[in-house]
Amino acid sequence: MALPSGQRISLLRLFNRIIKNDIRCCSGRAPVRKCLSKMSLYPPTKQKGEFSNCKSQSLFLYNDILFPCHSGAYNYLPLGLRALEKLTRLIDEEMQNIGAQKIAMPSMIKASLWKRTGRWDTPELFKLKDRHSKEYCLGPTHEELITDMVSQFGMIPYKRLPIMLYQITTKFRDEMHPKYALLRGREFQMKDMYTFDTDEVTAKETYERICDTYCKIFNRLELNFKKVAGATGNIGGTLSHEFQLPSDIGEDTIYTCNQCGFGSNVELIDPIEVESNNVSCPKCKSEMEKSSGIEVGHAFYLGTKYSSVFNVYYGSRYNEKILTEMGCYGLGVSRILQAGVEVLSTDKYIRWPTLLAPYQVCIIPQMQGYASEEFLEISNDLYDRLSGLPNLKNEVVIDDRITMTVGKRIYQADTQGYPNIVVVGSKTLKEPRMYEIKTPKISSDSEYLTLDQLIDRLSIIETI
Amino acid sequence: MALPSGQRISLLRLFNRIIKNDIRCCSGRAPVRKCLSKMSLYPPTKQKGEFSNCKSQSLFLYNDILFPCHSGAYNYLPLGLRALEKLTRLIDEEMQNIGAQKIAMPSMIKASLWKRTGRWDTPELFKLKDRHSKEYCLGPTHEELITDMVSQFGMIPYKRLPIMLYQITTKFRDEMHPKYALLRGREFQMKDMYTFDTDEVTAKETYERICDTYCKIFNRLELNFKKVAGATGNIGGTLSHEFQLPSDIGEDTIYTCNQCGFGSNVELIDPIEVESNNVSCPKCKSEMEKSSGIEVGHAFYLGTKYSSVFNVYYGSRYNEKILTEMGCYGLGVSRILQAGVEVLSTDKYIRWPTLLAPYQVCIIPQMQGYASEEFLEISNDLYDRLSGLPNLKNEVVIDDRITMTVGKRIYQADTQGYPNIVVVGSKTLKEPRMYEIKTPKISSDSEYLTLDQLIDRLSIIETI
Ligand SMILES: [Zn+2]
Ligand SMILES: [Zn+2]
Repeated sequence: MALPSGQRISLLRLFNRIIKNDIRCCSGRAPVRKCLSKMSLYPPTKQKGEFSNCKSQSLFLYNDILFPCHSGAYNYLPLGLRALEKLTRLIDEEMQNIGAQKIAMPSMIKASLWKRTGRWDTPELFKLKDRHSKEYCLGPTHEELITDMVSQFGMIPYKRLPIMLYQITTKFRDEMHPKYALLRGREFQMKDMYTFDTDEVTAKETYERICDTYCKIFNRLELNFKKVAGATGNIGGTLSHEFQLPSDIGEDTIYTCNQCGFGSNVELIDPIEVESNNVSCPKCKSEMEKSSGIEVGHAFYLGTKYSSVFNVYYGSRYNEKILTEMGCYGLGVSRILQAGVEVLSTDKYIRWPTLLAPYQVCIIPQMQGYASEEFLEISNDLYDRLSGLPNLKNEVVIDDRITMTVGKRIYQADTQGYPNIVVVGSKTLKEPRMYEIKTPKISSDSEYLTLDQLIDRLSIIETI
Repeated sequence: MALPSGQRISLLRLFNRIIKNDIRCCSGRAPVRKCLSKMSLYPPTKQKGEFSNCKSQSLFLYNDILFPCHSGAYNYLPLGLRALEKLTRLIDEEMQNIGAQKIAMPSMIKASLWKRTGRWDTPELFKLKDRHSKEYCLGPTHEELITDMVSQFGMIPYKRLPIMLYQITTKFRDEMHPKYALLRGREFQMKDMYTFDTDEVTAKETYERICDTYCKIFNRLELNFKKVAGATGNIGGTLSHEFQLPSDIGEDTIYTCNQCGFGSNVELIDPIEVESNNVSCPKCKSEMEKSSGIEVGHAFYLGTKYSSVFNVYYGSRYNEKILTEMGCYGLGVSRILQAGVEVLSTDKYIRWPTLLAPYQVCIIPQMQGYASEEFLEISNDLYDRLSGLPNLKNEVVIDDRITMTVGKRIYQADTQGYPNIVVVGSKTLKEPRMYEIKTPKISSDSEYLTLDQLIDRLSIIETI
C-alpha cells in the first residue's frame, strides 16, 4: 500500500530520528544518555497462548511474560522477570523489617546430609553424581544444609537468638506431573526461611511474627488469602499453617468455618466426615465450607527434629547446652507471581497485584503522519519527567513500536496489565495540552489531564 | 570479674532497652517501626579463616562473608550476599543503559540441545536424569537454550535487531580442582548475554559497545583490568577478548605490550616464543610483558555458529531470510566479587570496590557505664537521620553487640571493610557534639565532625 508522499517522508524522518536516538544513547564510545525503556528493544516472540484451562498460564504465554522451555520449566521474558524481581524485593523488605537476614546456599546438596534425616528416598529429588562419583541432590528445600551449617557456628549465646535466616533461590522438584506453568514446575523460585529459638514459647512467638508478616505480604499484594491448619508431611514438626489463595484451579481442598474463622486443609479432617460431605468445625462445631485453594505459603514449627540430628545447641543464661527449637517458612515466589494473576485477571486481561506490574506507566505515542515526530518527542520528554520522580525511577516504558497502530498498542498495554497507560495523541498537541490516561483496574474510561495533574496523580503511586 | 555496681545497673537498663526496642519494632501484631540493621541480628559464626595462599578466600571466611559448604560450593552469609546483590544491580544498570533486556532461563537444559551442537561430551558438565529417564545437564552457559528459544520467535524483522538478552543466574561446572572459594567454584553466579544482529558489521558494533560497557563496569568498581585477545575454545567463534585482573594468584598467563597497548592470552602466542621467554608484539614488534591474571569477563563474536544450528533468521529490508549473527558475553559475577577484593585488600583488611561494600556506613556506639544508654540512643537517632538520606537508604548498620569492646568492634568494622565507620563516643556527649569518623580506604586517622558536617560528607556518597 502506497502512503501519501507527505506521510512517507514524515515516517522516514521519524525512522531516522529513532535510529539517531539509538546511536546517540547507545554508542559505547561516548554515551550521552542511557537508553530509554522501549518496547522496541524487546524480542518480538510471535507467541500464541497454549491451550490451557489455566487462565494465568494462557495470559503469561500470550503476553510475553513467559516462554516455554521443557516440561515444568519456563523462560522468564523481560516483563515476567521484572515482575518476579519486584516480588522478590517486596519479600526482602518485609523479611528484613522483622530482622531476618538474607543468605544464599548452594543448589547442590550432599547426599550424606539427606541420609542423616532419612529423607534421601523422597521420590521428587533430582539426584546427580559429580566426576568423583559423589552423590548430590538439587535442593527442593534446605533444612539439612542450613542446620548443618549453623551447627558449625558452635554453641550460640542465648542473647543472639532468635536467628532468622532466609534465601530466595531456585529450587528443584522432580514432579510427576508438572502443570500450569509456574503453579507446579520442576524449577521454581522459593523463599525459604529457617529460624532458631531458645524454647517452645519463643519459637512460637517467632512463628506468629512470621505468619503475621506473610499476611502483610499478601495484603500488600491485594490478594484474598486463607490461613489454614496444614499437615506437616515430609518436612516434619508438630504445628503447621498453609496460606491458600482461593481459586477453582487450586489443587488443595480446604475447609473454612465462617463462624469462628478456623480453617484446615482436608488432610487434617476425618475422611468419614469428608466423604459424608458434612464437616463440622473442630473449634465451634459449625458446618465448614469446602473450597479449592492454591498453596502459596507454608509455616512449620519443627521443634528439635533437625537441630537434634545436626546438634545445634545454644548456651543458656546458666551456661547450659540446650538444643535450639527450629521453624521453617516457605513462600512459593514464582507460584505467587502466577497465582496472584490467576485470581485477579479476566480471561483476556492480565491484572497484576499493582505493585508487581512490570512497569507502572506505559506511554503510547500516537503515530499520525506529520505529527508522529512531535508525538514521539513529547513522549520522550514525558518519559524523562516521569522517570525523574523518585517513585517512578525505572517504572516507565514507551511503546515506540511505530509499525503498530495506536489502538493495537493500547489494547496490548491493557492485556499486559500496566496500571497506567498514557496516550500522547492529538489533544496533547493543542493548548491546553491534555494527556489521555487509562487506569484499567479502576475504570474502563479515559481521563484527560494536564501535565501537572498527570504528575500529581503518578507521583503518589507506591512502587517497590 | 565483678563490675562496679553503678556500671552493672547501667548495663541492665541497657539490656532492657534493647529488648524493649526489639519487642517494639519486631512485634508481628502491631509493628511500630521496622527493625534497624543491627549486627546483633547476624548469626555469630566463630569462623576461622582456613589456611589458603589466597588472601581474599581467607578474608571472606574470617570475616563472615562466606561459609564453606562442600568442595567448590559456599554459602553466602548476609554481608557477602549484600555485596553480591550490589554487584548484580550495578551490572543490571549498565546492561540496561545500553538497551539490553534481562531474562532468566532454567538451570536444567535438555541433553538433546547440547547434542545438536556437539558439546554434550564436555567433561565439566553436570548431568542428571529425571524420573522419566530424560537426560539434562546443569547449564554452565546457555548458548544452546537461548538460540533454540529465539528460533521459535520466527523470522525476526530487521528493524527489531540487535536483540540483546542477558541473565544473571547460578551456573554449574564440574571442576576437576575447585580452588580459592568463588574464584573457581562448581556453582557460581554468571552474567551471560547473547546478542543477535543482522550482519558482521552490526554484530561487531554490538561487540564493541558491550566491551566498552564492561570497561565502564570495571572502572566503576575501581579495578585495574587488562583487555586482551582470547582463544575461542569450546564456545567457538572467530573473535574473542578477555577481561583480566592482574594478580599473582591468577591462573591465566597474559602478555601485554606497553608500547601499543595490545594484549593477548598466552594461548594465542607461538609456544616457541613463550618457551624462549621472548614474546614480541604482533602489532608493533616491541617486547611483550608477561603477567598473571584472573579472568573476570569474556566476549565472543560467534558469527552463525549457533544460529545456523538452531535456524535463527531475520527478515531483511528486501524480505530475504538471513541467518542472524550472534555474540555472547560473560561476566563472572561471583568471581568479580572475590577477585575485586583480592586485588584491593591487604592481608588483614578487606577493601571492597567501594560501591560493593555490604554497608556504606557502620555506626559503633561506645559502651561506657552510665553513658552507654545515651550512646545507643544517639546512635539510633543517627541511624534514622542517615538512613533517611536518599543515597543511604538500607546502607547503614549499627554494631550494637554491646558485649564486645568498642575497640574490638572498630577493628572488625575495619577488617570487614566498611568505607565509613562512625564512632559515637565521649566527644558526642559534650557540646559541640562531635562524631568520630574513619574512612579506612583514604586515611588511617580519625576525623571529628559535627552532625551537619557528617551528613554533608555522607549524603554525597555514590551507592547502588
Ligand atoms: Zn468454627
Ligand atoms: Zn605493541
